[in-house]
Parts: sequence; structure tokens; C-alpha cells
Amino acid sequence: MKHVLVVLPVERRHREKLERAGSGCEFVYTDGSDPNEQQLASANIIIGNVPAHSLAAAKELEWLQLNSAGADPYIQPGVLPEGVYLTNATGAYGKAVSEHAFAMTLMLQKKLHLYRDAQRRSYWTDAGTVVSMADAVVLVVGLGDIGLRYARLAKAMGAYVIGIRRRPGACPDGVDELYSPEKLDELLPRADVVASFLPGTAGTGHLYTAQRFAAMKNSAIFINCGRGSAVDGEVLREALEQGKIAAAGVDVTDPEPLPADSPLWQLDNLMITPHISGQFHLPETFERIVDIAAENLSAYCAGEPLKNIVDFETGYRR
Amino acid sequence: MKHVLVVLPVERRHREKLERAGSGCEFVYTDGSDPNEQQLASANIIIGNVPAHSLAAAKELEWLQLNSAGADPYIQPGVLPEGVYLTNATGAYGKAVSEHAFAMTLMLQKKLHLYRDAQRRSYWTDAGTVVSMADAVVLVVGLGDIGLRYARLAKAMGAYVIGIRRRPGACPDGVDELYSPEKLDELLPRADVVASFLPGTAGTGHLYTAQRFAAMKNSAIFINCGRGSAVDGEVLREALEQGKIAAAGVDVTDPEPLPADSPLWQLDNLMITPHISGQFHLPETFERIVDIAAENLSAYCAGEPLKNIVDFETGYRR
Repeated sequence: MKHVLVVLPVERRHREKLERAGSGCEFVYTDGSDPNEQQLASANIIIGNVPAHSLAAAKELEWLQLNSAGADPYIQPGVLPEGVYLTNATGAYGKAVSEHAFAMTLMLQKKLHLYRDAQRRSYWTDAGTVVSMADAVVLVVGLGDIGLRYARLAKAMGAYVIGIRRRPGACPDGVDELYSPEKLDELLPRADVVASFLPGTAGTGHLYTAQRFAAMKNSAIFINCGRGSAVDGEVLREALEQGKIAAAGVDVTDPEPLPADSPLWQLDNLMITPHISGQFHLPETFERIVDIAAENLSAYCAGEPLKNIVDFETGYRR
Repeated sequence: MKHVLVVLPVERRHREKLERAGSGCEFVYTDGSDPNEQQLASANIIIGNVPAHSLAAAKELEWLQLNSAGADPYIQPGVLPEGVYLTNATGAYGKAVSEHAFAMTLMLQKKLHLYRDAQRRSYWTDAGTVVSMADAVVLVVGLGDIGLRYARLAKAMGAYVIGIRRRPGACPDGVDELYSPEKLDELLPRADVVASFLPGTAGTGHLYTAQRFAAMKNSAIFINCGRGSAVDGEVLREALEQGKIAAAGVDVTDPEPLPADSPLWQLDNLMITPHISGQFHLPETFERIVDIAAENLSAYCAGEPLKNIVDFETGYRR
């Protein structure tokens, strides 16, 4: 009999769904709180993001199902013993994060961030010309679930969409051109919008260098809804202050949370949201996480392969 | 030989286009300035919005081609003598205004206005749950060129779209249900988004009463990118302060410009832009206006019927 520790803030219907999927298992719920040592010590399966450092106490752990798409803290050496499965919630966040990133892009294209600032000063004042998504070349860097949904929103509004992903394969619907990451530098000068949805892995750290911002159009809008580590805050600040790009919208920062004394807060042409595009802000996201966990639990109990297994080398889904 | 007075800030290629369309006419250009009495006195045709009061001097006027979609000041009694044609630029603003309204809607759905406010105070703070356009019932009031384009953007993102227009006819692509204006009160309680694109006519003045805001969902988002006169500012303020609706985004106000001491400026859940969604902020708009003027000029010279003739009774295109 497997002991399943659920740290998500589940409601009755979620419990029922999980318990149907793992019939025969014993369930312990923390209702969203961090588990105590005893709960960790007896858990064979954990559903939900427990603090990475606390996993040392989970001596019986066989499988950790994260509620996040990013797995950065859990793939660090020593966090999980060898042989423990790690699965993420890729697929649950696509709708929420892509829509947030898309809303942020349109906001910047239409200068609504500047109009909001003017409003707060009671100014009836014209911020000048705007651009249209329908005329934009949109470069989506990281064409996973989130990136592809973003690509399709842009395409539906008339944009020309170029995608970059590790394994290009066939060009999916909603994408006009598809490339592998080596082509990034060649593609940056073509883009009116550069939208990045990269996970926090060794290969994506400080990917957007000063040179790369300089290679973008002066009129480009840069969006980051992946991980803050992809952009050094100082490099972003310089790119924005020096007009290397027109504007940026980021849901993630480095460090995170952004310190109150960071100069980034007060840049007119930067829109910052506090890493809220995902989480459970769109209620549907939580339902999708529970669905993924239940499906995997059912597979695990039946001895079938898990979905969304994270590769410890790359941090990506395998 | 007709005398054509062009008050738009045209460039060389626009002049060439107009002069090809009106070959044989004599052209006078003010390059965006208001014309003087002499210029007005000799004009048979005026292209562009001259101050309405100055038209008394245009004794030879046969036809006024506006660069705006709205014709409110020009249909007032006594502004234009009987028999003068009045045409508007309906069709030129569809892309610019619909995209602006759509960007504003997504901004409010994702609480980006609140995050902008927090950013300016250097606050890393969570504004709570958001909603999705994909799950929204969107009621578009005024399904002309602008409204229909807005409807299609919403539909492309997954919304269920209900349209209202004066002459319903066949339900166009991108609209799920279509009604005439009498159904407004029945439809308001169904909508997650009420997006209004009504012109400033007698029938649309203060259309959105306190009762109508009360009939909307508490979670509804209200958008006005038509004319400010459709909503009394005091009524809107009360609806927002009392939580009759969740948020509003307006590009138009009443009065306009909004006075600096208006309490509307400082409402957290109201986004105000200073009537900039149209104008020439999207450069393509101006190209479309010149196209409409050139097409009409060509028709006028050939003795063919003009397009976009404004009905003096309703203020709408005939």
C-alpha cells in the first residue's frame, strides 16, 4: 500500500478524483501547508511542490509529482535520491501563462502602461503612435505548451510567427517558420516581438546578452514569461534605457522577488508582474494540475509509465 | 473645375493619390492646419475635419469628406447647408480601435492595470485570480466595422460572442448570436465583457444607466471605445465603486477631455485612455482615410454615388 502525501490546497472533489485514481493507496493531505517530518518520512508519493530542502526527510519517496512546470530546485544534485521519479505539471499552465504574456504584449504595443501612468497623474495626454499585432513578426523562443499557445494567439490576430525549439520537427499549426536554438542570433533582427518561455536550465542562464538585445530592432518588444535567470536585470535595464529595444514585459526577474530598490521598477518602458502568470491565478490551472496528478497516479498504481517525467540533466520533460 | 481643399497632413504620395483620383480638380493643401476664410470660401470639396463652426464660410461647399468615423459636430442643425454631402471615414479605424479595445480588455482581465500601479510603488504583490477571454461571453454593442473586428478578435481567442446592431440581418462570421438594440437589457446579465462602440447620436446618450450597470454581472468588464456621451461619468463611478461591475476601460469620457479634478482618474478598477484609440496613432489608419477620400473623389468626379454618406437624422452611415 502506497502512502500518498498531497500538499495541494485540494477541495473535496479533487480528493475524490485523486482517491479514485489511487484506489488502495493511503492519502494524507496538508491542505496547502508544508508537510511535517513525519508526513515526509512515510510518503512514497508526494503530489505538490514541497520545499526542496525538506526532501532529505522523505526516505521512502519513490515519486514526486510537482504542481509547477519548472523543476529547477528539484533537479539540483542531492535534492532527490537516485531512482526517484520526478514529474512536472507541464500542460497545466499553457492557457494562463500564454494569455498573460499575450495581454502584456498588446498592452505594450498600445502603450497602455504609459496611459496608466498618465492616468495616475490625472493627465489627459497623447503617447504617440502605436503598432499592431497584425503587422508584427513574432519570434517565440521556447515553443513548448505555453509558447505554442502564445504563438497561436499571435497568429490568430494576424502576426507572422517564427518559433524556436530544441527539437524542431514538423512546423505546428499557428507557426510560420520553425528553427532550432542555434538560429537565435540570425532570427532576432527580424522580430517585432521576441517572446521567451524558456525554463531555468544551465543552457538558458543569461541567454539574452547585451549583444542579443542590440541585435533586436530598436522598435522590438521583449517578453519574458519563462524564468528570470534568462536575463540579467542590469543588461535588460541598459537595453531599455539605451533604446536598444522599445519596451519589455516580464513576469519573472532575477533575483526574484525583485528588491524594492531595484531601478527596474521605475523604467517607463518596462512592465513587471510578480511571477503571477501561472500559479493558480486562473482557476482552471489548478483543475488541470489535479487532472495530471490523478492520471499519473492511476498509471503509477497500474505499473504503467508516468507522463511529464523531468530529465535531471536538462530540466525539461523527457 | 472643382476646388478641393485638403486639410489632412498628407505626404507627397498621398497628394499624388488624391490628384490622380480628382484629375482636373484644383487642389489646395493646409498640411494639417485649419484653413483660412479664403480657402474655405472657394472650396467645393473639403477633405478632412475642419472646425464645424468655420463651415459657415464655405459658401461654395458641395461635399465634406470627414477623416473621422464620428460625425457628431457636423450633423448639428445649421452647420452644413441643405444639399451638401457629408461622408465619413467609417472603415479606416476598425483595426486601430478594435485592437486598442481588445488590448484594454485583456489588460483588465489579467489585472495588468493593478500590477502597473504596484510596480510604480515598487511592490512585488499578488493581485489575485484572473479570468480568461476563452471562457468569456462577450457582448458587443454596436457591431459596425470596429465592433465586428473586436468581436472577431474575441472569438479568435475562444470567447462566445453576442452582437447587437440596429439592423441585425444575417449573423456574421465571428459572432454567435445577433440581436437588435431592444434586446440589450435581456442580454446584459449574460455578459462577462460588455464592449460598446456606439456613435454619439441622440439614441445613445447616457444609454448605460445605473440600472443597466446593476443588471450586469458583478464580475463584468465594461469597455467603451465609442463616444463618451454613452455613459454619465458619475454613473460609471458609482457602478465601479459599488462593485456593480468589476472593472471598466474607456477611451472616451464625458466631458472630454476629462478634467484634472475628476474622481474617475483615481479609480483603481477603471482604465482611461485619452481618446487616442483612433486618430492616426496606427499609421495604417491614415492610409485608409486617404484611400477612402480618393475613392470617393474619383466617384464624385465621375458623377457616381459617394460611399459612407452620413445620415443627418441618425448620425450613422446611410
